[in-house]
Amino acid sequence: MKKEKSMAQVLTEFDTIAAISTPIGEGGISIVRMSGEDAIKIANQVFKGANLAKVDTHTIHYGHIINPQNDQVIDEVMVTVLRAPKTFTCEDIVEINCHGGIVVTNKILQLLLSSGARMADPGEFTKRAFVNGRIDLTQAESVMDIVRAKTDKARQVAVKQLEGGLMHQIRAMRQEILDTLANVEVNIDYPEYDADQVTAKQMSETSQSVINKINHLLKTSQQGTILRNGLATAIVGKPNVGKSSLLNYLTQSDKAIVTDVAGTTRDTLEEYVSVQGVPLKLIDTAGIHHTEDKVEKIGVERSQQALEKADLVLLLLDSSKELSDEDKMLIKLTEPKKRIIVLNKTDLGQKLSVDEVKELTHSEIISTSILKEKNLEELEGAIKELFFSGIENSNDQVLVTNQRQVALLKKAKGELEDVIDAVNNDVPVDIAQIDFNGAWDTLGEITGDSAPDELINQLFSQFCLGK
Amino acid sequence: MKKEKSMAQVLTEFDTIAAISTPIGEGGISIVRMSGEDAIKIANQVFKGANLAKVDTHTIHYGHIINPQNDQVIDEVMVTVLRAPKTFTCEDIVEINCHGGIVVTNKILQLLLSSGARMADPGEFTKRAFVNGRIDLTQAESVMDIVRAKTDKARQVAVKQLEGGLMHQIRAMRQEILDTLANVEVNIDYPEYDADQVTAKQMSETSQSVINKINHLLKTSQQGTILRNGLATAIVGKPNVGKSSLLNYLTQSDKAIVTDVAGTTRDTLEEYVSVQGVPLKLIDTAGIHHTEDKVEKIGVERSQQALEKADLVLLLLDSSKELSDEDKMLIKLTEPKKRIIVLNKTDLGQKLSVDEVKELTHSEIISTSILKEKNLEELEGAIKELFFSGIENSNDQVLVTNQRQVALLKKAKGELEDVIDAVNNDVPVDIAQIDFNGAWDTLGEITGDSAPDELINQLFSQFCLGK
Repeated sequence: MKKEKSMAQVLTEFDTIAAISTPIGEGGISIVRMSGEDAIKIANQVFKGANLAKVDTHTIHYGHIINPQNDQVIDEVMVTVLRAPKTFTCEDIVEINCHGGIVVTNKILQLLLSSGARMADPGEFTKRAFVNGRIDLTQAESVMDIVRAKTDKARQVAVKQLEGGLMHQIRAMRQEILDTLANVEVNIDYPEYDADQVTAKQMSETSQSVINKINHLLKTSQQGTILRNGLATAIVGKPNVGKSSLLNYLTQSDKAIVTDVAGTTRDTLEEYVSVQGVPLKLIDTAGIHHTEDKVEKIGVERSQQALEKADLVLLLLDSSKELSDEDKMLIKLTEPKKRIIVLNKTDLGQKLSVDEVKELTHSEIISTSILKEKNLEELEGAIKELFFSGIENSNDQVLVTNQRQVALLKKAKGELEDVIDAVNNDVPVDIAQIDFNGAWDTLGEITGDSAPDELINQLFSQFCLGK
Repeated sequence: MKKEKSMAQVLTEFDTIAAISTPIGEGGISIVRMSGEDAIKIANQVFKGANLAKVDTHTIHYGHIINPQNDQVIDEVMVTVLRAPKTFTCEDIVEINCHGGIVVTNKILQLLLSSGARMADPGEFTKRAFVNGRIDLTQAESVMDIVRAKTDKARQVAVKQLEGGLMHQIRAMRQEILDTLANVEVNIDYPEYDADQVTAKQMSETSQSVINKINHLLKTSQQGTILRNGLATAIVGKPNVGKSSLLNYLTQSDKAIVTDVAGTTRDTLEEYVSVQGVPLKLIDTAGIHHTEDKVEKIGVERSQQALEKADLVLLLLDSSKELSDEDKMLIKLTEPKKRIIVLNKTDLGQKLSVDEVKELTHSEIISTSILKEKNLEELEGAIKELFFSGIENSNDQVLVTNQRQVALLKKAKGELEDVIDAVNNDVPVDIAQIDFNGAWDTLGEITGDSAPDELINQLFSQFCLGK
């Protein structure tokens, strides 16, 4: 039988790492964090206040960071001491809360580095939590998902994952495979005709059972991915049909996702809005804002570019006018996409009816007056329905949110399908077992229980510094 | 005698305020901070973990923030409990360290606000520290100076001020005035001819003594202000004289002051560099980068605009060529400014000597080859010398860094000069005393001991949120 990494493995003694753990910028407080066996010793060298070597764990202490070379005061600080193993990394952790300036925070970090700490790699704190067995890979991934969450719903899904929701499901599947594998090995050791058949049947049944569970998870992945990354949304339509009014409605303050970082210019930002919890990433909004200010020359051409990147198209038609050739072109052009047709300007005299448009398309049609803010909640509901039907009340459901997890789930599913095929074709049990083992390994890669080091390194390198 | 606010005043019971205290952005950790008598009670309502009402002060606790309405987990957090009065604000403080994402951090703040806390005004935490008598106004101001410090030297001066360096000097001056005032009042109560003369002499002498101290402080204010705000520096010269090479040298990584905030575009940033600890704010660097890429058409015109804003001019001349008309115009144009003339291109054949330039100006002249990086440290030294001569080894000196303080020092000085004038002109003591009292009040405005509420409110409103 394969040997799995023990979750209760002996803690490895790593060197001591340090990094700035708060976002870079000017704020009230910044945190410089250290983790490792020398964390407390190093902090003590630069801290004037209590003797940190003697204080209780999980206590915080007022004092000053000083440069031991010249006794110069660097800053007035609060220092938190957290002793292993009940910490984020399972190691000794010291957190220095200093004034939130760029110069002072860097100065303290530099002082720790020159006193024996090493600059942490991106994600290295979380990596240590993983390597020391406190969390699995899906939980580690959820940490960054919480940080990067664009809507509250996305945060909620990530927190669920941090609590181990996905890990438990994956580990349960692996246990199912492992239980069957144990029987298989017994049967192979004592080969008899009957036992072999029983074994094959067991493997096939287990495979199907696990496939069903994987399918269930994969079904959540579209929504999960949208929640995590946002739904790339193109607003298209001929000039003056109301694109920029719709955009203004969507980006009004209660919907706009706060990304007002001082000093950033609006143009370079991706604009995210939250539509009933669904994060929409609006494509080329600068373009829309810009072109409707003047006369928009080439509506179709612009639209074509935006369409390529879109998961969702909101196509605006003017119900106060007959369908123009441009409208018809846009209807055809956006046909292959998930689409909602917005029949706008219901506040004016109507020359284009819902029925007329229905003849041209199967897409959902919502009549609105964006100007008078009429029926816009229905439009939002339609967007949510289009992507989240079926998981309406899913506050507690585990969603698969990232492509790594999806790819591994699909791979495991393929391996299990091969097991079923093999059994159906009377392939010898020990051959069919290879894929069965494979699926066990593949699922282990999701949680990190059997993930290769390169994968783990690559994964954590995408984290932000100080996490 | 005037009644001064007692430093040991009874703590006012304020409502409980909350704010995000770390810079906004994506990072490892964010802190949501509460201060006020209900801070612990409110935190307890949304925290699942230890009972915060019963934990020791200065301890930190693992747990989850939950929405008490529906028991939904908002985030996994560490919560610090700091009980009054030994805290930053002298009130109960609770700090929630959560995952550093925008959505999750805002969600926790919203939860605190809906549980009874009020959104803190900018600087309100520091304001409470001031109102509760833990720090004076100069210390409060230094808090933001630390956050905004552009160089390590600036941080150092701000930390010195936070430690009370300036406060002690101002309070000592006030005490001197107060001691004399006490004598004056005694003398006025028992008026005799001799006593009146003695009194006048005392006031005059004290005034001169305090003026001397004020002069000493005012002398530091130029440097202090430069350290705090940066020295606006214009690099001027005709095309291809080496402006953009000098700029590249100055902005190379070990001199550039880190302001790389994700998502900011370089053009909109002010470029700060640290030249031997002096922060230079480079004027129109985008312009220099840009125009020397192509042919620069109107060197003089560009220079004129930059010059208006400059505290320091670095005028580049090409020593491998005769002085051109344009050079002569630039020398004349920059004459009124603090200026260093950089005689560049010493690596080429020399057609313009230092002596030749010396005949035209009294400014310091430094010969360099920016291309070969020759004599650039001398240039840096000259910049530092020009602004910081006389306070060379001033690591421990108190510098006055802000205009509010400078203006009040000048006002107090004026009032004290009026006292001396009055005494010299035999103005009755009780009339001369009005200005003497005035100086005492004015100095009190610097520390906040006698500052009006509007001033205090206005001052703290310039702070960042969460500080």
